Amino acid sequence: MRILVTNDDGILADGISILAQELLKIGEVEIVAPDRERSATGHAITVLRPLRINTVKLRDLGIKAWAVDGTPSDCVKLAIEDLLEWKPDVVVSGINRGPNLGTDVLYSGTVSAAIEGAIYGIPSVAVSVAAFENCHYPVAAEFSRNLVSILAEKGLPPETLLNVNVPSVDKRDLAGVAITKLGARVWKDVFERRVDPRGRTYYWMAGTVEEHEGDLDIDAVAVRHNMVSITPIHLDLTKHDLIDELRTWDLEF
Amino acid sequence: MRILVTNDDGILADGISILAQELLKIGEVEIVAPDRERSATGHAITVLRPLRINTVKLRDLGIKAWAVDGTPSDCVKLAIEDLLEWKPDVVVSGINRGPNLGTDVLYSGTVSAAIEGAIYGIPSVAVSVAAFENCHYPVAAEFSRNLVSILAEKGLPPETLLNVNVPSVDKRDLAGVAITKLGARVWKDVFERRVDPRGRTYYWMAGTVEEHEGDLDIDAVAVRHNMVSITPIHLDLTKHDLIDELRTWDLEF
Repeated sequence: MRILVTNDDGILADGISILAQELLKIGEVEIVAPDRERSATGHAITVLRPLRINTVKLRDLGIKAWAVDGTPSDCVKLAIEDLLEWKPDVVVSGINRGPNLGTDVLYSGTVSAAIEGAIYGIPSVAVSVAAFENCHYPVAAEFSRNLVSILAEKGLPPETLLNVNVPSVDKRDLAGVAITKLGARVWKDVFERRVDPRGRTYYWMAGTVEEHEGDLDIDAVAVRHNMVSITPIHLDLTKHDLIDELRTWDLEF
Repeated sequence: MRILVTNDDGILADGISILAQELLKIGEVEIVAPDRERSATGHAITVLRPLRINTVKLRDLGIKAWAVDGTPSDCVKLAIEDLLEWKPDVVVSGINRGPNLGTDVLYSGTVSAAIEGAIYGIPSVAVSVAAFENCHYPVAAEFSRNLVSILAEKGLPPETLLNVNVPSVDKRDLAGVAITKLGARVWKDVFERRVDPRGRTYYWMAGTVEEHEGDLDIDAVAVRHNMVSITPIHLDLTKHDLIDELRTWDLEF
Protein backbone atom coordinates (compact mmCIF):
# COMPACT_ATOMS: atom_id res chain seq x y z
CA MET A 1 0.00 0.00 0.00
CA ARG A 2 1.24 3.48 -0.89
CA ILE A 3 0.30 6.27 1.49
CA LEU A 4 0.63 10.02 1.10
CA VAL A 5 0.82 11.80 4.45
CA THR A 6 0.22 15.52 4.91
CA ASN A 7 -1.11 17.90 7.57
CA ASP A 8 -1.80 21.57 8.31
CA ASP A 9 0.36 22.01 11.41
CA GLY A 10 3.45 21.98 9.21
CA ILE A 11 6.04 19.36 8.37
CA LEU A 12 7.94 19.83 11.63
CA ALA A 13 4.93 19.12 13.87
CA ASP A 14 5.06 16.06 16.11
CA GLY A 15 1.75 14.67 14.87
CA ILE A 16 2.86 14.08 11.30
CA SER A 17 6.07 12.25 12.22
CA ILE A 18 4.33 9.94 14.66
CA LEU A 19 1.61 9.23 12.09
CA ALA A 20 4.06 8.55 9.27
CA GLN A 21 6.16 6.25 11.43
CA GLU A 22 3.12 4.20 12.40
CA LEU A 23 1.83 3.96 8.82
CA LEU A 24 5.25 2.66 7.71
CA LYS A 25 4.24 -0.62 9.35
CA ILE A 26 1.58 -1.21 6.70
CA GLY A 27 2.93 0.40 3.54
CA GLU A 28 5.18 2.79 1.70
CA VAL A 29 4.89 6.33 3.03
CA GLU A 30 5.87 9.68 1.55
CA ILE A 31 5.22 13.07 3.11
CA VAL A 32 4.31 16.32 1.35
CA ALA A 33 3.32 18.96 3.87
CA PRO A 34 3.34 22.72 4.46
CA ASP A 35 6.68 24.15 5.54
CA ARG A 36 4.97 25.89 8.48
CA GLU A 37 1.69 25.90 10.35
CA ARG A 38 -1.25 26.58 8.03
CA SER A 39 -4.15 26.12 10.42
CA ALA A 40 -7.66 27.28 9.46
CA THR A 41 -6.70 27.69 5.81
CA GLY A 42 -9.91 25.92 4.77
CA HIS A 43 -9.77 24.66 1.22
CA ALA A 44 -7.45 27.43 0.05
CA ILE A 45 -5.08 26.94 -2.85
CA THR A 46 -2.26 29.24 -3.88
CA VAL A 47 -2.84 30.91 -7.24
CA LEU A 48 -1.54 34.46 -6.77
CA ARG A 49 2.12 33.47 -6.37
CA PRO A 50 4.16 30.41 -7.30
CA LEU A 51 4.97 27.58 -4.91
CA ARG A 52 8.43 26.45 -3.84
CA ILE A 53 9.43 23.06 -2.55
CA ASN A 54 12.29 21.71 -0.46
CA THR A 55 13.15 18.12 0.33
CA VAL A 56 13.40 17.55 4.05
CA LYS A 57 15.13 14.93 6.19
CA LEU A 58 12.71 14.12 9.02
CA ARG A 59 14.63 12.75 12.01
CA ASP A 60 15.68 9.21 11.18
CA LEU A 61 12.42 8.04 9.67
CA GLY A 62 13.90 7.21 6.30
CA ILE A 63 10.82 8.64 4.62
CA LYS A 64 10.92 10.87 1.55
CA ALA A 65 9.51 14.24 2.56
CA TRP A 66 8.87 17.55 0.83
CA ALA A 67 8.04 20.89 2.46
CA VAL A 68 5.86 23.21 0.38
CA ASP A 69 5.37 26.92 1.08
CA GLY A 70 1.62 26.56 0.50
CA THR A 71 -1.58 25.16 1.92
CA PRO A 72 -2.51 21.53 2.67
CA SER A 73 -4.56 21.44 -0.56
CA ASP A 74 -1.55 22.72 -2.52
CA CYS A 75 0.52 19.91 -0.98
CA VAL A 76 -1.84 17.15 -2.07
CA LYS A 77 -2.18 18.59 -5.57
CA LEU A 78 1.59 18.97 -5.99
CA ALA A 79 2.25 15.51 -4.56
CA ILE A 80 -0.12 13.79 -6.95
CA GLU A 81 0.53 15.96 -10.01
CA ASP A 82 4.29 16.16 -9.76
CA LEU A 83 6.26 14.99 -6.73
CA LEU A 84 5.28 11.38 -6.11
CA GLU A 85 6.34 8.66 -8.48
CA TRP A 86 3.16 6.71 -7.71
CA LYS A 87 -0.49 7.53 -7.25
CA PRO A 88 -1.27 7.01 -3.57
CA ASP A 89 -3.74 4.32 -2.52
CA VAL A 90 -4.65 6.38 0.54
CA VAL A 91 -4.16 10.00 1.65
CA VAL A 92 -3.89 10.57 5.40
CA SER A 93 -3.86 14.10 6.81
CA GLY A 94 -2.77 14.75 10.39
CA ILE A 95 -2.39 14.10 13.15
CA ASN A 96 -3.79 17.52 13.85
CA ARG A 97 -3.18 19.20 17.19
CA GLY A 98 -6.73 20.09 18.23
CA PRO A 99 -10.16 18.79 17.24
CA ASN A 100 -11.84 19.26 13.85
CA LEU A 101 -15.52 18.88 14.65
CA GLY A 102 -18.91 19.91 13.32
CA THR A 103 -19.26 23.05 11.24
CA ASP A 104 -15.59 23.83 11.93
CA VAL A 105 -14.44 21.23 9.40
CA LEU A 106 -15.20 23.91 6.78
CA TYR A 107 -12.24 25.90 8.14
CA SER A 108 -9.92 22.97 8.64
CA GLY A 109 -6.74 22.66 6.65
CA THR A 110 -6.38 19.09 7.89
CA VAL A 111 -9.76 18.12 6.49
CA SER A 112 -9.19 20.12 3.28
CA ALA A 113 -6.17 17.96 2.46
CA ALA A 114 -8.35 14.85 2.74
CA ILE A 115 -11.02 16.57 0.63
CA GLU A 116 -8.37 17.15 -2.03
CA GLY A 117 -7.48 13.46 -1.91
CA ALA A 118 -11.15 12.57 -2.38
CA ILE A 119 -11.37 14.95 -5.37
CA TYR A 120 -8.57 12.89 -6.93
CA GLY A 121 -10.61 9.76 -6.28
CA ILE A 122 -8.32 8.47 -3.52
CA PRO A 123 -9.72 7.13 -0.22
CA SER A 124 -8.71 9.80 2.29
CA VAL A 125 -8.70 10.29 6.03
CA ALA A 126 -8.25 13.37 8.25
CA VAL A 127 -7.10 12.61 11.79
CA SER A 128 -7.10 14.99 14.75
CA VAL A 129 -6.35 14.67 18.45
CA ALA A 130 -9.04 16.48 20.39
CA ALA A 131 -6.70 18.49 22.61
CA PHE A 132 -4.22 21.32 22.23
CA GLU A 133 -1.90 20.31 25.07
CA ASN A 134 -0.56 16.88 26.14
CA CYS A 135 -1.72 15.36 22.86
CA HIS A 136 -1.66 11.55 22.90
CA TYR A 137 -0.50 11.21 19.29
CA PRO A 138 0.56 7.53 19.54
CA VAL A 139 -2.99 6.40 20.37
CA ALA A 140 -4.37 8.34 17.40
CA ALA A 141 -1.58 7.00 15.18
CA GLU A 142 -2.28 3.38 16.12
CA PHE A 143 -5.99 3.91 15.52
CA SER A 144 -5.21 5.49 12.13
CA ARG A 145 -3.04 2.56 11.09
CA ASN A 146 -5.83 0.12 11.88
CA LEU A 147 -8.41 2.27 10.10
CA VAL A 148 -6.24 2.69 6.99
CA SER A 149 -5.75 -1.09 6.76
CA ILE A 150 -9.50 -1.63 6.85
CA LEU A 151 -10.14 1.29 4.50
CA ALA A 152 -7.71 -0.10 1.92
CA GLU A 153 -9.71 -3.30 1.86
CA LYS A 154 -13.24 -1.84 2.03
CA GLY A 155 -12.80 1.35 -0.01
CA LEU A 156 -15.07 4.40 0.08
CA PRO A 157 -17.74 5.67 -2.33
CA PRO A 158 -16.60 8.42 -4.75
CA GLU A 159 -16.14 11.94 -3.35
CA THR A 160 -16.15 10.66 0.23
CA LEU A 161 -13.61 10.86 3.04
CA LEU A 162 -13.42 10.07 6.73
CA ASN A 163 -12.94 12.68 9.45
CA VAL A 164 -11.51 11.13 12.60
CA ASN A 165 -11.21 12.78 16.01
CA VAL A 166 -9.42 10.87 18.75
CA PRO A 167 -9.78 11.87 22.41
CA SER A 168 -6.43 12.70 23.96
CA VAL A 169 -6.43 9.94 26.56
CA ASP A 170 -4.60 6.68 27.20
CA LYS A 171 -5.77 3.82 25.03
CA ARG A 172 -7.26 2.04 28.03
CA ASP A 173 -9.46 5.07 28.76
CA LEU A 174 -11.05 5.15 25.28
CA ALA A 175 -14.77 4.33 25.49
CA GLY A 176 -15.01 2.88 21.98
CA VAL A 177 -15.61 4.08 18.44
CA ALA A 178 -18.64 6.10 17.29
CA ILE A 179 -19.70 6.64 13.69
CA THR A 180 -21.08 10.17 13.83
CA LYS A 181 -22.65 13.14 12.08
CA LEU A 182 -21.11 16.60 12.06
CA GLY A 183 -22.78 18.64 14.77
CA ALA A 184 -23.53 22.34 14.83
CA ARG A 185 -20.61 24.28 16.26
CA VAL A 186 -21.59 27.65 17.70
CA TRP A 187 -18.86 30.06 18.78
CA LYS A 188 -19.30 33.10 20.97
CA ASP A 189 -17.04 36.09 21.58
CA VAL A 190 -15.46 35.38 18.21
CA PHE A 191 -13.19 38.43 18.19
CA GLU A 192 -10.99 39.91 20.87
CA ARG A 193 -10.38 43.57 20.16
CA ARG A 194 -7.05 45.05 21.28
CA VAL A 195 -5.23 48.33 20.84
CA ASP A 196 -1.60 48.42 19.73
CA PRO A 197 1.07 50.67 21.32
CA ARG A 198 0.37 53.26 18.61
CA GLY A 199 -3.33 53.43 19.49
CA ARG A 200 -4.63 51.44 16.54
CA THR A 201 -7.24 48.71 16.92
CA TYR A 202 -6.67 45.12 15.87
CA TYR A 203 -8.71 41.94 16.22
CA TRP A 204 -7.75 38.42 17.24
CA MET A 205 -10.06 35.63 16.18
CA ALA A 206 -10.63 33.64 19.34
CA GLY A 207 -13.89 32.74 21.08
CA THR A 208 -15.24 29.74 22.90
CA VAL A 209 -17.47 26.94 21.69
CA GLU A 210 -20.90 26.51 23.23
CA GLU A 211 -20.93 22.79 23.99
CA HIS A 212 -24.35 21.15 23.84
CA GLU A 213 -25.40 17.80 25.16
CA GLY A 214 -26.78 15.48 22.52
CA ASP A 215 -26.68 11.96 21.25
CA LEU A 216 -23.50 9.99 20.82
CA ASP A 217 -24.00 10.11 17.07
CA ILE A 218 -22.89 13.78 17.10
CA ASP A 219 -19.13 14.04 16.63
CA ALA A 220 -18.39 16.50 19.44
CA VAL A 221 -20.57 14.62 21.92
CA ALA A 222 -18.90 11.30 21.15
CA VAL A 223 -15.44 12.79 21.66
CA ARG A 224 -16.50 14.38 24.94
CA HIS A 225 -17.48 10.89 26.08
CA ASN A 226 -13.98 9.61 25.26
CA MET A 227 -15.07 7.88 22.08
CA VAL A 228 -13.13 8.01 18.82
CA SER A 229 -15.43 9.79 16.35
CA ILE A 230 -15.47 8.89 12.66
CA THR A 231 -17.65 11.03 10.41
CA PRO A 232 -18.11 10.15 6.74
CA ILE A 233 -17.93 13.37 4.69
CA HIS A 234 -19.07 13.91 1.12
CA LEU A 235 -18.36 16.68 -1.37
CA ASP A 236 -21.75 17.08 -3.00
CA LEU A 237 -22.64 20.62 -1.98
CA THR A 238 -25.72 20.83 -4.20
CA LYS A 239 -28.92 21.08 -2.18
CA HIS A 240 -30.88 18.83 -4.51
CA ASP A 241 -34.20 19.10 -2.68
CA LEU A 242 -34.38 22.86 -3.24
CA ILE A 243 -34.07 22.72 -7.03
CA ASP A 244 -37.74 22.22 -7.78
CA GLU A 245 -38.74 25.02 -5.40
CA LEU A 246 -36.29 27.47 -7.02
CA ARG A 247 -37.72 26.63 -10.44
CA THR A 248 -41.02 28.18 -9.30
CA TRP A 249 -39.38 31.57 -8.58
CA ASP A 250 -39.97 34.26 -11.19
CA LEU A 251 -36.34 35.05 -11.98
CA GLU A 252 -36.61 36.61 -15.43
CA PHE A 253 -35.55 40.26 -15.33
CA MET B 1 -33.72 45.60 3.68
CA ARG B 2 -30.15 45.62 5.01
CA ILE B 3 -27.50 44.08 2.80
CA LEU B 4 -23.90 43.20 3.58
CA VAL B 5 -21.74 43.16 0.45
CA THR B 6 -18.34 41.48 0.26
CA ASN B 7 -16.13 39.71 -2.30
CA ASP B 8 -12.77 38.03 -2.79
CA ASP B 9 -11.33 40.21 -5.54
CA GLY B 10 -10.72 42.95 -2.99
CA ILE B 11 -12.55 46.13 -2.08
CA LEU B 12 -11.14 48.07 -5.02
CA ALA B 13 -12.42 45.65 -7.67
CA ASP B 14 -15.00 46.91 -10.16
CA GLY B 15 -17.44 44.09 -9.48
CA ILE B 16 -18.11 45.00 -5.87
CA SER B 17 -18.79 48.70 -6.54
CA ILE B 18 -21.19 47.97 -9.37
CA LEU B 19 -22.98 45.37 -7.23
CA ALA B 20 -23.26 47.65 -4.20
CA GLN B 21 -24.54 50.55 -6.28
CA GLU B 22 -27.26 48.39 -7.81
CA LEU B 23 -28.31 46.90 -4.45
CA LEU B 24 -28.68 50.44 -3.04
CA LYS B 25 -31.89 50.64 -5.10
CA ILE B 26 -33.56 48.06 -2.88
CA GLY B 27 -32.02 48.58 0.57
CA GLU B 28 -29.33 49.80 2.88
CA VAL B 29 -25.90 48.56 1.86
CA GLU B 30 -22.62 48.32 3.75
CA ILE B 31 -19.39 46.79 2.45
CA VAL B 32 -16.81 44.79 4.36
CA ALA B 33 -14.28 43.28 1.99
CA PRO B 34 -10.65 42.17 1.75
CA ASP B 35 -8.16 45.01 1.23
CA ARG B 36 -6.65 43.13 -1.73
CA GLU B 37 -7.39 40.18 -3.98
CA ARG B 38 -7.88 36.97 -1.98
CA SER B 39 -8.90 34.59 -4.76
CA ALA B 40 -8.94 30.83 -4.12
CA THR B 41 -8.73 31.27 -0.36
CA GLY B 42 -11.48 28.69 0.12
CA HIS B 43 -13.09 28.88 3.51
CA ALA B 44 -9.92 30.11 5.21
CA ILE B 45 -10.03 32.25 8.32
CA THR B 46 -7.16 34.12 9.90
CA VAL B 47 -6.15 32.77 13.29
CA LEU B 48 -2.34 32.93 13.32
CA ARG B 49 -2.17 36.75 13.28
CA PRO B 50 -4.57 39.54 14.18
CA LEU B 51 -6.72 41.40 11.66
CA ARG B 52 -6.63 45.12 10.94
CA ILE B 53 -9.41 47.21 9.46
CA ASN B 54 -9.57 50.52 7.63
CA THR B 55 -12.63 52.49 6.64
CA VAL B 56 -12.62 53.26 2.94
CA LYS B 57 -14.33 55.87 0.80
CA LEU B 58 -15.47 54.11 -2.36
CA ARG B 59 -15.81 56.62 -5.21
CA ASP B 60 -18.95 58.64 -4.57
CA LEU B 61 -21.22 55.76 -3.62
CA GLY B 62 -21.99 57.13 -0.16
CA ILE B 63 -21.75 53.60 1.24
CA LYS B 64 -19.99 52.74 4.48
CA ALA B 65 -17.10 50.47 3.62
CA TRP B 66 -14.36 48.68 5.55
CA ALA B 67 -11.24 47.03 4.15
CA VAL B 68 -9.94 44.05 6.14
CA ASP B 69 -6.49 42.50 5.72
CA GLY B 70 -8.02 39.03 5.81
CA THR B 71 -10.10 36.54 3.88
CA PRO B 72 -13.72 36.84 2.69
CA SER B 73 -14.82 34.64 5.62
CA ASP B 74 -12.96 36.92 8.04
CA CYS B 75 -14.82 39.88 6.53
CA VAL B 76 -18.27 38.39 7.05
CA LYS B 77 -17.43 37.31 10.61
CA LEU B 78 -16.02 40.73 11.51
CA ALA B 79 -18.92 42.56 9.87
CA ILE B 80 -21.55 40.62 11.78
CA GLU B 81 -19.69 40.29 15.08
CA ASP B 82 -18.36 43.81 15.31
CA LEU B 83 -18.50 46.32 12.47
CA LEU B 84 -22.14 46.55 11.38
CA GLU B 85 -24.70 48.18 13.63
CA TRP B 86 -27.38 45.84 12.29
CA LYS B 87 -27.61 42.16 11.45
CA PRO B 88 -27.89 41.91 7.67
CA ASP B 89 -31.04 40.49 6.09
CA VAL B 90 -28.98 39.27 3.14
CA VAL B 91 -25.27 38.72 2.44
CA VAL B 92 -24.18 39.15 -1.19
CA SER B 93 -20.65 38.21 -2.25
CA GLY B 94 -19.28 39.38 -5.59
CA ILE B 95 -19.42 40.19 -8.33
CA ASN B 96 -16.50 37.88 -8.89
CA ARG B 97 -14.33 38.24 -11.95
CA GLY B 98 -14.40 34.70 -13.35
CA PRO B 99 -16.76 31.76 -12.91
CA ASN B 100 -17.23 29.70 -9.73
CA LEU B 101 -18.58 26.43 -11.02
CA GLY B 102 -18.77 22.78 -10.02
CA THR B 103 -16.16 21.29 -7.71
CA ASP B 104 -14.26 24.59 -7.88
CA VAL B 105 -16.69 26.25 -5.48
CA LEU B 106 -14.72 24.48 -2.74
CA TYR B 107 -11.79 26.78 -3.53
CA SER B 108 -13.81 29.93 -4.01
CA GLY B 109 -13.40 32.85 -1.65
CA THR B 110 -16.53 34.40 -3.18
CA VAL B 111 -18.62 31.37 -2.29
CA SER B 112 -16.96 31.00 1.11
CA ALA B 113 -18.22 34.45 2.12
CA ALA B 114 -21.77 33.37 1.28
CA ILE B 115 -21.20 30.13 3.19
CA GLU B 116 -20.18 32.21 6.19
CA GLY B 117 -23.41 34.21 5.87
CA ALA B 118 -25.39 30.96 5.78
CA ILE B 119 -23.58 29.75 8.92
CA TYR B 120 -24.89 32.89 10.63
CA GLY B 121 -28.39 31.98 9.45
CA ILE B 122 -28.59 34.79 6.88
CA PRO B 123 -29.85 34.18 3.32
CA SER B 124 -26.72 34.54 1.22
CA VAL B 125 -25.77 34.73 -2.43
CA ALA B 126 -22.46 34.41 -4.29
CA VAL B 127 -22.39 36.07 -7.71
CA SER B 128 -19.77 35.61 -10.42
CA VAL B 129 -19.39 36.74 -14.00
CA ALA B 130 -18.22 33.82 -16.09
CA ALA B 131 -15.34 35.62 -17.81
CA PHE B 132 -11.98 37.06 -16.88
CA GLU B 133 -11.90 39.83 -19.49
CA ASN B 134 -14.62 42.23 -20.68
CA CYS B 135 -16.81 41.33 -17.74
CA HIS B 136 -20.40 42.53 -18.10
CA TYR B 137 -20.84 43.43 -14.44
CA PRO B 138 -23.98 45.58 -14.88
CA VAL B 139 -26.01 42.65 -16.24
CA ALA B 140 -24.93 40.47 -13.30
CA ALA B 141 -25.66 43.32 -10.89
CA GLU B 142 -29.16 43.85 -12.22
CA PHE B 143 -29.85 40.13 -12.05
CA SER B 144 -28.54 40.07 -8.47
CA ARG B 145 -30.81 42.94 -7.43
CA ASN B 146 -33.85 41.12 -8.78
CA LEU B 147 -32.78 37.85 -7.15
CA VAL B 148 -32.13 39.48 -3.76
CA SER B 149 -35.59 41.08 -3.82
CA ILE B 150 -37.22 37.72 -4.42
CA LEU B 151 -34.93 35.99 -1.91
CA ALA B 152 -35.84 38.48 0.81
CA GLU B 153 -39.47 37.58 0.31
CA LYS B 154 -39.10 33.80 -0.15
CA GLY B 155 -36.21 33.06 2.21
CA LEU B 156 -34.00 29.98 2.12
CA PRO B 157 -33.86 26.84 4.29
CA PRO B 158 -31.22 26.85 7.07
CA GLU B 159 -27.59 26.34 6.07
CA THR B 160 -28.34 27.04 2.42
CA LEU B 161 -27.07 29.65 -0.03
CA LEU B 162 -27.29 30.38 -3.73
CA ASN B 163 -24.35 30.28 -6.11
CA VAL B 164 -25.00 32.41 -9.20
CA ASN B 165 -22.91 32.50 -12.37
CA VAL B 166 -23.85 35.04 -15.04
CA PRO B 167 -22.55 34.72 -18.62
CA SER B 168 -20.59 37.78 -19.65
CA VAL B 169 -22.88 38.87 -22.45
CA ASP B 170 -25.36 41.65 -23.17
CA LYS B 171 -28.67 41.22 -21.42
CA ARG B 172 -30.44 40.62 -24.73
CA ASP B 173 -28.11 37.69 -25.44
CA LEU B 174 -28.93 35.83 -22.22
CA ALA B 175 -30.79 32.60 -22.95
CA GLY B 176 -32.67 32.49 -19.64
CA VAL B 177 -32.15 31.23 -16.11
CA ALA B 178 -31.29 27.64 -15.17
CA ILE B 179 -31.54 26.12 -11.70
CA THR B 180 -28.59 23.77 -11.68
CA LYS B 181 -26.45 21.22 -9.87
CA LEU B 182 -22.71 21.58 -9.35
CA GLY B 183 -20.95 19.62 -12.07
CA ALA B 184 -17.64 17.78 -11.86
CA ARG B 185 -14.77 20.08 -12.75
CA VAL B 186 -11.67 18.25 -13.98
CA TRP B 187 -8.47 20.21 -14.48
CA LYS B 188 -5.45 19.06 -16.45
CA ASP B 189 -1.87 20.33 -16.47
CA VAL B 190 -2.50 21.74 -13.02
CA PHE B 191 1.06 22.95 -12.44
CA GLU B 192 3.44 24.83 -14.66
CA ARG B 193 7.01 24.22 -13.57
CA ARG B 194 9.52 27.02 -14.12
CA VAL B 195 13.13 27.70 -13.16
CA ASP B 196 14.14 31.00 -11.59
CA PRO B 197 17.26 32.99 -12.63
CA ARG B 198 19.18 31.27 -9.81
CA GLY B 199 18.35 27.80 -11.14
CA ARG B 200 15.72 26.90 -8.56
CA THR B 201 12.40 25.30 -9.51
CA TYR B 202 9.04 26.87 -8.72
CA TYR B 203 5.47 25.92 -9.61
CA TRP B 204 2.53 28.02 -10.82
CA MET B 205 -0.91 26.60 -10.32
CA ALA B 206 -2.60 26.95 -13.68
CA GLY B 207 -4.18 24.31 -15.89
CA THR B 208 -7.20 24.10 -18.12
CA VAL B 209 -10.65 22.73 -17.48
CA GLU B 210 -11.89 19.75 -19.44
CA GLU B 211 -15.32 20.95 -20.54
CA HIS B 212 -17.90 18.22 -20.97
CA GLU B 213 -21.21 18.36 -22.72
CA GLY B 214 -24.13 17.54 -20.51
CA ASP B 215 -27.61 18.58 -19.54
CA LEU B 216 -28.59 22.16 -18.90
CA ASP B 217 -29.10 21.31 -15.25
CA ILE B 218 -25.29 21.22 -14.82
CA ASP B 219 -23.99 24.68 -13.86
CA ALA B 220 -21.09 24.87 -16.33
CA VAL B 221 -23.20 23.60 -19.21
CA ALA B 222 -25.95 26.15 -18.55
CA VAL B 223 -23.45 29.01 -18.48
CA ARG B 224 -21.84 27.82 -21.71
CA HIS B 225 -25.31 28.05 -23.27
CA ASN B 226 -25.59 31.68 -22.14
CA MET B 227 -27.94 30.91 -19.30
CA VAL B 228 -27.66 32.40 -15.83
CA SER B 229 -26.95 29.46 -13.51
CA ILE B 230 -28.28 29.36 -9.95
CA THR B 231 -27.18 26.43 -7.80
CA PRO B 232 -28.59 25.94 -4.31
CA ILE B 233 -25.76 24.93 -1.97
CA HIS B 234 -26.01 23.36 1.47
CA LEU B 235 -23.49 22.96 4.26
CA ASP B 236 -24.32 19.47 5.49
CA LEU B 237 -21.10 17.65 4.70
CA THR B 238 -22.10 14.46 6.53
CA LYS B 239 -22.54 11.53 4.16
CA HIS B 240 -25.53 10.15 6.02
CA ASP B 241 -26.03 7.10 3.82
CA LEU B 242 -22.58 5.73 4.69
CA ILE B 243 -23.10 5.73 8.46
CA ASP B 244 -24.76 2.31 8.69
CA GLU B 245 -22.11 0.73 6.47
CA LEU B 246 -19.26 2.14 8.60
CA ARG B 247 -20.89 0.74 11.73
CA THR B 248 -20.28 -2.74 10.32
CA TRP B 249 -16.49 -2.17 10.12
CA ASP B 250 -14.43 -3.79 12.87
CA LEU B 251 -12.70 -0.68 14.18
CA GLU B 252 -11.72 -1.73 17.68
CA PHE B 253 -7.94 -1.83 18.04
